[in-house]
Amino acid sequence: MILNEQTMIPETKIAKEEISTWFMGLQDRICAALETADGKAKFREDLWTREKGGGGRTRVISHGTVFEKGGVNYSSVYGPTPDAILKALQLPPGEFYATGVSIVIHPQNPLVPIIHMNVRYFEMSNGAWWFGGGIDLTPHYIVEADARLFHDALKQTCEKHTQGFYPEFKKWADDYFFIPHRKETRGIGGIFFDRLDSKRGSQEMLFQFVKDVGETFAPIYTSLVSKNKDLPFTEKQKQWQLLRRGRYVEFNLVYDKGTRFGLDTDGRTESILMSLPEMASWVYNHQAAPGSAEEKTLSLLKKGIDWV
Amino acid sequence: MILNEQTMIPETKIAKEEISTWFMGLQDRICAALETADGKAKFREDLWTREKGGGGRTRVISHGTVFEKGGVNYSSVYGPTPDAILKALQLPPGEFYATGVSIVIHPQNPLVPIIHMNVRYFEMSNGAWWFGGGIDLTPHYIVEADARLFHDALKQTCEKHTQGFYPEFKKWADDYFFIPHRKETRGIGGIFFDRLDSKRGSQEMLFQFVKDVGETFAPIYTSLVSKNKDLPFTEKQKQWQLLRRGRYVEFNLVYDKGTRFGLDTDGRTESILMSLPEMASWVYNHQAAPGSAEEKTLSLLKKGIDWV
Repeated sequence: MILNEQTMIPETKIAKEEISTWFMGLQDRICAALETADGKAKFREDLWTREKGGGGRTRVISHGTVFEKGGVNYSSVYGPTPDAILKALQLPPGEFYATGVSIVIHPQNPLVPIIHMNVRYFEMSNGAWWFGGGIDLTPHYIVEADARLFHDALKQTCEKHTQGFYPEFKKWADDYFFIPHRKETRGIGGIFFDRLDSKRGSQEMLFQFVKDVGETFAPIYTSLVSKNKDLPFTEKQKQWQLLRRGRYVEFNLVYDKGTRFGLDTDGRTESILMSLPEMASWVYNHQAAPGSAEEKTLSLLKKGIDWV
Repeated sequence: MILNEQTMIPETKIAKEEISTWFMGLQDRICAALETADGKAKFREDLWTREKGGGGRTRVISHGTVFEKGGVNYSSVYGPTPDAILKALQLPPGEFYATGVSIVIHPQNPLVPIIHMNVRYFEMSNGAWWFGGGIDLTPHYIVEADARLFHDALKQTCEKHTQGFYPEFKKWADDYFFIPHRKETRGIGGIFFDRLDSKRGSQEMLFQFVKDVGETFAPIYTSLVSKNKDLPFTEKQKQWQLLRRGRYVEFNLVYDKGTRFGLDTDGRTESILMSLPEMASWVYNHQAAPGSAEEKTLSLLKKGIDWV
């Protein structure tokens, strides 16, 4: 809480620097947890600055025991709001401030799921502000017990704050992480939310919610990792993983708003595209064998499944 | 040439069926030439029909001696013009007819270039018609002599018709096959043209031009294939090929109008995405070694190079 220097009365507005500082700390904690989970690979950090204001810390892990490729990125950018952002978000001209943490992890073992998280805060010089973010899981093979574990953790995090957040944000994730040309969801979803502003809660309450989402990432993912990382897998399962990664690439390059937006607004390409896997594959008209685990996974890539 | 049944005077309009029949024959000839060049793999054909009118013949070759994955697709689709097409092409409502051949070939050997060709014809029920298309080459390693050979063949094809076509369509390809977020051209370009209508020549002359473009494909590509297919290559060159294919995926999914349009208008996904390679790779912030062949190739991925 910040006290006004003159009146010593609490400000209702949290300083944007406080939020970005918290995001930096989150990045540190998650990188440390993932390095521990991997046991071998370390994150490599690239600091970058944005010509028109701000910058970031891109951290990439690769060729680990557990993680083939992954990125945990922090950024805090500001300045005159680019026209593309004004237009896309229907905002009046002014200065913007955007800060957040973005994560995509591609594991080695096809029995360990891909995970994505983003938590972000946006503020305009006219005083408008909102939070956005989400976590979603993309198992190469869907295991219902793991899906339940994952969704249950997200549900608990949501319910610490507002009873209706989980069903609302779970549906939002189902709708967002969908690949129309494949008629498939990207994975088993999770939660997704955007533009949570004073209409949805106080800034303090929403920041606390976003903090809790951020802190949910490491324990839930490392538990899924340790449960599955040592399971033996076949060459065929590895091939299937590469095909599922191909779908991940399709979603990110064709539909993901953050990715396209970053590319359209001349963002740092290597930080944006760290989400792409080291290896991916496309096979013409691949069909899963009837009765196979692959077919079962495909049958579960749809909206509206109540995993909890 | 078609004679009017009443007057026995030549019709100025070529029947659309004549054009699509010619495209089918082109598909046959190119598949035969590529099978001969490969020496082992054969095209697999999938016939498909479009619910609202028309269909196509998708032909895919894979795991060949020379070709890792490639598609040579013919289609002829018609019916009420989808709103997305009316809007994108700024057309009045009516029925459309679109036919063409699309090709993307990903070779095994990184010293053999990727090639793409498209030739197409579009007609509206109000009588509007035009041709479009192009051929462009994406070498994993740019060899200037091969680039000259390729562009020289395209220049000759263009100059059989109209002196200005080559410089105009060569520039169009440079501008079209460009990846803004990488600040790279996709490859060494080639020719690209769209909406060639009566303002650019008679229908007969433009059809003949498109025929000649189509017939340029097999000899030029098979000559590049036979020149390079048996060259030895290293594991490092293979890795570089996978990275370049990653860029190809980026172009096709983020920028290629045909791909995005097909996905947006509920086209046949497997036919559209046959352009994607069997394997592709993304490595965070990969840098070519100073003085390497990879660095030289990157330095040549820019617009405006006069290859001839």
